[in-house]
Amino acid sequence: MLISGKEKLERMRDGRVIHIGVERVTDVTRHAAFRNGARTIAALYDLTSDPQRRELFTFEENGERYGLAWLRCRTREDLARRMRAMKAIADSTYGLIGRSPDHVAGLITGLAMRPALLDTLRPGCGENLVRYYEFARRNDLYISFAVTPPSGIRSREIFTGEARDDPTLQVVGEDDRGVIVSGMKMLATGAVFADEVWIGNLTPIDETRRSESITAALPVNTPGVSFWAREPYERHARHEADYPLSYRYDETDTVLVCDRVRVPWERVFLHNNGGMSRRIYIETPANCYQNHQSNIRFWSKMRLIVGLASRMCQANGVDKIAGVRETLGRLAALEATIGGLVAGQIEAFEQWPDGYATPNRRIMYAALNWCQEHHTEIIDILRTLAGAAPLQMPASIDLVADPELKERFERWWSTPALAAPDRLKLYKLAWDLIGSEFAGRHMLYERFYAGNSIIVRNQSDREAPWEDFHATVDELLARIETPG
Amino acid sequence: MLISGKEKLERMRDGRVIHIGVERVTDVTRHAAFRNGARTIAALYDLTSDPQRRELFTFEENGERYGLAWLRCRTREDLARRMRAMKAIADSTYGLIGRSPDHVAGLITGLAMRPALLDTLRPGCGENLVRYYEFARRNDLYISFAVTPPSGIRSREIFTGEARDDPTLQVVGEDDRGVIVSGMKMLATGAVFADEVWIGNLTPIDETRRSESITAALPVNTPGVSFWAREPYERHARHEADYPLSYRYDETDTVLVCDRVRVPWERVFLHNNGGMSRRIYIETPANCYQNHQSNIRFWSKMRLIVGLASRMCQANGVDKIAGVRETLGRLAALEATIGGLVAGQIEAFEQWPDGYATPNRRIMYAALNWCQEHHTEIIDILRTLAGAAPLQMPASIDLVADPELKERFERWWSTPALAAPDRLKLYKLAWDLIGSEFAGRHMLYERFYAGNSIIVRNQSDREAPWEDFHATVDELLARIETPG
Amino acid sequence: MLISGKEKLERMRDGRVIHIGVERVTDVTRHAAFRNGARTIAALYDLTSDPQRRELFTFEENGERYGLAWLRCRTREDLARRMRAMKAIADSTYGLIGRSPDHVAGLITGLAMRPALLDTLRPGCGENLVRYYEFARRNDLYISFAVTPPSGIRSREIFTGEARDDPTLQVVGEDDRGVIVSGMKMLATGAVFADEVWIGNLTPIDETRRSESITAALPVNTPGVSFWAREPYERHARHEADYPLSYRYDETDTVLVCDRVRVPWERVFLHNNGGMSRRIYIETPANCYQNHQSNIRFWSKMRLIVGLASRMCQANGVDKIAGVRETLGRLAALEATIGGLVAGQIEAFEQWPDGYATPNRRIMYAALNWCQEHHTEIIDILRTLAGAAPLQMPASIDLVADPELKERFERWWSTPALAAPDRLKLYKLAWDLIGSEFAGRHMLYERFYAGNSIIVRNQSDREAPWEDFHATVDELLARIETPG
Amino acid sequence: MLISGKEKLERMRDGRVIHIGVERVTDVTRHAAFRNGARTIAALYDLTSDPQRRELFTFEENGERYGLAWLRCRTREDLARRMRAMKAIADSTYGLIGRSPDHVAGLITGLAMRPALLDTLRPGCGENLVRYYEFARRNDLYISFAVTPPSGIRSREIFTGEARDDPTLQVVGEDDRGVIVSGMKMLATGAVFADEVWIGNLTPIDETRRSESITAALPVNTPGVSFWAREPYERHARHEADYPLSYRYDETDTVLVCDRVRVPWERVFLHNNGGMSRRIYIETPANCYQNHQSNIRFWSKMRLIVGLASRMCQANGVDKIAGVRETLGRLAALEATIGGLVAGQIEAFEQWPDGYATPNRRIMYAALNWCQEHHTEIIDILRTLAGAAPLQMPASIDLVADPELKERFERWWSTPALAAPDRLKLYKLAWDLIGSEFAGRHMLYERFYAGNSIIVRNQSDREAPWEDFHATVDELLARIETPG
Repeated sequence: MLISGKEKLERMRDGRVIHIGVERVTDVTRHAAFRNGARTIAALYDLTSDPQRRELFTFEENGERYGLAWLRCRTREDLARRMRAMKAIADSTYGLIGRSPDHVAGLITGLAMRPALLDTLRPGCGENLVRYYEFARRNDLYISFAVTPPSGIRSREIFTGEARDDPTLQVVGEDDRGVIVSGMKMLATGAVFADEVWIGNLTPIDETRRSESITAALPVNTPGVSFWAREPYERHARHEADYPLSYRYDETDTVLVCDRVRVPWERVFLHNNGGMSRRIYIETPANCYQNHQSNIRFWSKMRLIVGLASRMCQANGVDKIAGVRETLGRLAALEATIGGLVAGQIEAFEQWPDGYATPNRRIMYAALNWCQEHHTEIIDILRTLAGAAPLQMPASIDLVADPELKERFERWWSTPALAAPDRLKLYKLAWDLIGSEFAGRHMLYERFYAGNSIIVRNQSDREAPWEDFHATVDELLARIETPG
Repeated sequence: MLISGKEKLERMRDGRVIHIGVERVTDVTRHAAFRNGARTIAALYDLTSDPQRRELFTFEENGERYGLAWLRCRTREDLARRMRAMKAIADSTYGLIGRSPDHVAGLITGLAMRPALLDTLRPGCGENLVRYYEFARRNDLYISFAVTPPSGIRSREIFTGEARDDPTLQVVGEDDRGVIVSGMKMLATGAVFADEVWIGNLTPIDETRRSESITAALPVNTPGVSFWAREPYERHARHEADYPLSYRYDETDTVLVCDRVRVPWERVFLHNNGGMSRRIYIETPANCYQNHQSNIRFWSKMRLIVGLASRMCQANGVDKIAGVRETLGRLAALEATIGGLVAGQIEAFEQWPDGYATPNRRIMYAALNWCQEHHTEIIDILRTLAGAAPLQMPASIDLVADPELKERFERWWSTPALAAPDRLKLYKLAWDLIGSEFAGRHMLYERFYAGNSIIVRNQSDREAPWEDFHATVDELLARIETPG
Repeated sequence: MLISGKEKLERMRDGRVIHIGVERVTDVTRHAAFRNGARTIAALYDLTSDPQRRELFTFEENGERYGLAWLRCRTREDLARRMRAMKAIADSTYGLIGRSPDHVAGLITGLAMRPALLDTLRPGCGENLVRYYEFARRNDLYISFAVTPPSGIRSREIFTGEARDDPTLQVVGEDDRGVIVSGMKMLATGAVFADEVWIGNLTPIDETRRSESITAALPVNTPGVSFWAREPYERHARHEADYPLSYRYDETDTVLVCDRVRVPWERVFLHNNGGMSRRIYIETPANCYQNHQSNIRFWSKMRLIVGLASRMCQANGVDKIAGVRETLGRLAALEATIGGLVAGQIEAFEQWPDGYATPNRRIMYAALNWCQEHHTEIIDILRTLAGAAPLQMPASIDLVADPELKERFERWWSTPALAAPDRLKLYKLAWDLIGSEFAGRHMLYERFYAGNSIIVRNQSDREAPWEDFHATVDELLARIETPG
Repeated sequence: MLISGKEKLERMRDGRVIHIGVERVTDVTRHAAFRNGARTIAALYDLTSDPQRRELFTFEENGERYGLAWLRCRTREDLARRMRAMKAIADSTYGLIGRSPDHVAGLITGLAMRPALLDTLRPGCGENLVRYYEFARRNDLYISFAVTPPSGIRSREIFTGEARDDPTLQVVGEDDRGVIVSGMKMLATGAVFADEVWIGNLTPIDETRRSESITAALPVNTPGVSFWAREPYERHARHEADYPLSYRYDETDTVLVCDRVRVPWERVFLHNNGGMSRRIYIETPANCYQNHQSNIRFWSKMRLIVGLASRMCQANGVDKIAGVRETLGRLAALEATIGGLVAGQIEAFEQWPDGYATPNRRIMYAALNWCQEHHTEIIDILRTLAGAAPLQMPASIDLVADPELKERFERWWSTPALAAPDRLKLYKLAWDLIGSEFAGRHMLYERFYAGNSIIVRNQSDREAPWEDFHATVDELLARIETPG
């Protein structure tokens, strides 16, 4: 049952605990820091539950309709169909919502394609997972996740074995009903709008830290759970025209803090297994389904960037210059590159046990690497094309409230091609991709959404057919005769 | 009828005129500068005519078998099949032969998918083309091409309108039998081994230069035709172990010089049409089919590079270091990137009139751009991984002919992991990708195989759906309300 | 007479007209958007007027003390001394104030080293300039400048000759008393704190636009002059700990709008001369003196960046990792690079007519190019080192006002190495260099402070000794004998 | 006593043992692989011993004249003078001879500025060094060096402690007369032309490898010493016009093999001290004096590159295009950058004990890093500017021996601007920087002359004033008040 945006907004008013510095937020749908973001998420629900587009966004299983992110694909066409749904979702927010509901849905769907693995690790966990999968898709849940330890602790990835006493989220007690967890987990993007939060580990941990391996799902309003937000950008944007993206598309990030939070056993999917707490995502389609969405989302964002680059060059009157055309041609090529990498994953799809299918994992990881390597440069191109123009706009469109200022604004700032308010909107949009705090957060996140470069490239290392690569070289060398 | 390598070698002995500086080459199959290259081409013919692999390399049409490069695809499966054949061809030479026979075959096949265009420009030319296409595929021809003006003249691309008196190949006379052409054309790669050479224009020319628009095909031994070679690298490689790639894979480049060469009308495909002389490749699948091979070939080369990088790191004893693993993972990701872009072209294939199909052009051009942007960097990574090791090897394996030197070589140069001669071969192979003249030519050619970056990116600019990109931005901006 | 910070603040309260969107600012020293910035500028005055440091910051001429930025150097030691003063000024604000008072002071001082040029162009202008120079240095003025046309009009740099009707600042009338100017000029950085604003042209204009060539200086409170600010970042920073740089170092940017502003003749330095309106800065030491400050300032900023990078790595516990040490070593090398380029300008100083001396111009322009090419990458390194840590901090230090939140903050966010509030300050500082809007503006400005890359590199092209470079090649080639 | 080129050639005929593969070279001054290189070195001696230029190239001490590379500088002017001499030496070979005689001379001179250090480590070694310094400069010796272990063993830099049994050069015996050494040492550049070879360690070794720490100097014709050359490039260049640089400027690289070579005690400078075997170069001015030459040499090379880039653009008729001018301006800026970094080292020179002076070490290491980071890119720019033109030239100028070919060559290959032979020489020169094996070796060496990037950046890390950098950040942070 897909739900409407209105229903989604209703669900957000459930007593969840959110702190912005000293301030306690009581209703995200009304708070100045979150209300537009909440509406953006709600709009995604309106989009996907639209009866007119049920073929685009949903599939039927046993007589019920589910969002396509939840489809356990079996064929190339399944994969293509799931991809098209996610592309339409990403397009509707210009690729600016990294953790849209289909992201974690993919992760859970991937696990649900091989629940036996969880059962092997701890009897019953596989069944828990399948039941949760059914529950989540039936209720069209928006699930966020918090799957890395706090930043200081990251060093363990590198210096395994060193003890640290950081308050990383871990199990501090257990009984018949379930486990009790305490500690922090990073960085629950979108959680202030979500229904549930998934906890687990996307970075490797070792057996000495097995208590941190707990993998579970919690409603965001579970007692003891609180979310500590970084600065919300939406609240600085008093007018949409001033910060067109901050105004609507701040997906928010929060630190998840659990203070002796009780998790019932049926919500536990893995426990006391450091070695496997990350590998379950790799040995199932989970990591692949999840990150395939990231590739698609970046593709949507590229479309906005390329279109904006071109419109800015037109507004600056430089779009006919040969050097500028080369740059625009290059940007168009980059858009086709990420698009091609998404398509290539479908063409070279992989068969899995039980008749399941995934996008090609090597291409998917290669695309993650491509996005990570190129985002800074792409934004830098946009910055170069923008020049100082964004800062030549008045601070705010609010000046139109003063007739005299408005008149002067329109007189001085208009160009033959573009009226002053349209120029202002165009360049403020550019600024929200290259210069605002919203932009700054995106510049950081496109580097770290999928882990740092070591993590991303290690995924490509792990999946590479090294024996085939070596065979190529060895065959060439073996053929060479040594004289004498 | 696919021919064998032996037959191909036979065809090379046809009196063609080739100059290496002052030296006149009389038989490329025996000359020290070309004989191994000739055998490499012959081996491609043995490979594709192998009856055991006819499903991989050929298709049937009207009861006859042709190489798959000549397939006018109609379906996704046709495209996938054609791609697999070209991949196997490229793999067999490690992607080092840029202009293997399937390259220009693709160009001609693309033209043969829309011959009516040529007929529109000049009645009969379309028929000429189709006849030539039939002739070429039936005889399994290796056709090279020379499709750019001499380098000084390149400025016309940029400064259109300026007169230059360079001796660019052009029509200097015509009569009932055909046209007479004189002048130079660049840079007929592989022509010394080919059967025919295609002349035409892959760079735009304007109407003032219509006499240069002549598009035709000539047997390489046509009277008046001569080929002026750049330094051949093969002849410096006295032992395969010293220069494993130069020894076998120098595809050669030559300047085509025509001295009042007669071309019969049936071999003329376009005449006196500056504006269209390049556009015929773009308004048909020609450019797409031709360059799709380039993408595939680069993919094969990446496989060699990645395998070699890994083998070198093992030989240097550094393959376990975290930073090295990140680099190797990145290289594996790059291999998957170009592979993904090739696959993506199939998935997102395009329908053309008359039921034909091509790989996705935008992705194909994006892949060209990707290869052009990344080759220098990829080789630089290989160079960094190699370190000074290649230059620490003795000058030549020939030292094994001297028992005392051999003994010392084996004593000093061996490592626990690798015997001295194997180390030598490994690092000499690396050198042939990063440091030898063969390597230097590849570093240049990967930048210019498909034209300079302006040309390559302009292809992406031309094919970009700018209206869609603009619509994305405009829609976002239009939704923003201005206060007041 | 050097003035104190207190006096400087006093001067800012002079009725200047500043708009932030619809809002009119009446007193920058008290307004929430500017007050800390005003104090930062005032602190520079306290610094340079400190009697204890008069040797560091001032020189004596005819019995009077002036700031060293105003020194018309004659010797290497003069140049070194002037450089040290500017370095101390830049260090005191961590290189974050691009247009500190010494910037335009350098420009005017450079003009004052060859006033005869202005007199040649228009009798009396040289004398005007010298008088203004004397006036400015005697009164320790802070002069900002607005020296580029509005952004749409930039295209004229490229498409000379095309008419545009943008309201670029120009002379619209003149009489015995002076000229009347109207229009916009970009982008008067620091003007809200300055005493005067210099108008002129740092980009070339042609004779058809001679009315725009007007070069003059105006008190910022001149009737008809208004400044239209871009969003001020200071006002978002409620606590210094939340945005340590935005809070204090927003130098501000404004569009200068002149509405029939009267400029007396004695304040006119050039009039009706499109060709020379930019060249006066190049044919005198003006451009060199001005931009030398930019080099020095970037050097100061590098010091902050390198120190911060190291401190962050320590806080993240990764500073011992080999790969991280290589990165830190590289950052230290980059700091020494810009430092070396500043020192090199002194060593290779140039003699000018009349016994004057300037830093080496080619090295100075090379340093500008270096800064422009490297800033994005340097910030990207910082971003990579920071990881997601900055966003894992609570939104604001204001939470310490709530005892319970404070206790939890200190319990959860502290590490053995660093108390929670210190971690927060450290990462918020990092964020103000990599992610905040303040950071975004710096990322843009370091690309455009000295003009776009075309402009910056053309300066290097113009000053290059091409004949010497050619002679090197020609000599080598001439020596090669051709056989025969 | 500075010697002439003729005397230097004489010295090369001393029975030294050189292998090129199986071939034994008996006289480098006559062998086709080395004779021109030998003459290039001889020309350096003619240059520096020219009585007309004794002020430029020599200094006087106690009535005797020595080459300026041997000057133990005490003042800025000393440093400037030494630099000018080295610049003139580098200019005369276009910066293509990395290990010209002044390179190792600098290293020894640096040690001679603090011989007490060597004495502390082993009594008598300091005196040995000073005596050798006096001997070397008095005889105007050309000393090469071999100071890194064979490549497999490099891993020890990274994996300290692991045992490897590679035959690295080490002491295998000692008696009253001296030590006996056996093993290989890399990579004795220029040794085939040198008088002596210095052995030691520029990479760190640990105490377990103390027998490898031996630091000494040997005449190149010492019994048991042999040099195993990599492929010499000179012998492929039959005509100077075909490979203008390979023909003359191959400085050669060889592996030094010692087969129970006896070294007398007076030629031993360090023994049995792993920890210090590298540090002696760092704790004296040795490393600084040596690498300062590398910076200067790169500067000379840039001059050739920039001049050639410009000449090629003129020859291609593209030098007026805006985008090309930006590229040329950038190249000119890069030339000024390395020049500025050299000058900056003089300006910011450092005082050492005993009144000695060195160039600024941090700037020197920063310059090494700059060269290492930029060389590939600079050559890539040159490659891009060259386009396919170099390969469009005939293979060899030898064709002018055939009157008919000569006539056709001149007819077809000439342009209005440039006669065919001049075009050929120009593009062959370009090829020798971007594509030939000589070029390939330079591309590798500019990455490794001063060690890999880890080593180079660690030098900058080691010399960085981290406490000052930290103080900058700490001071900023300390000033921030936390509310409450």
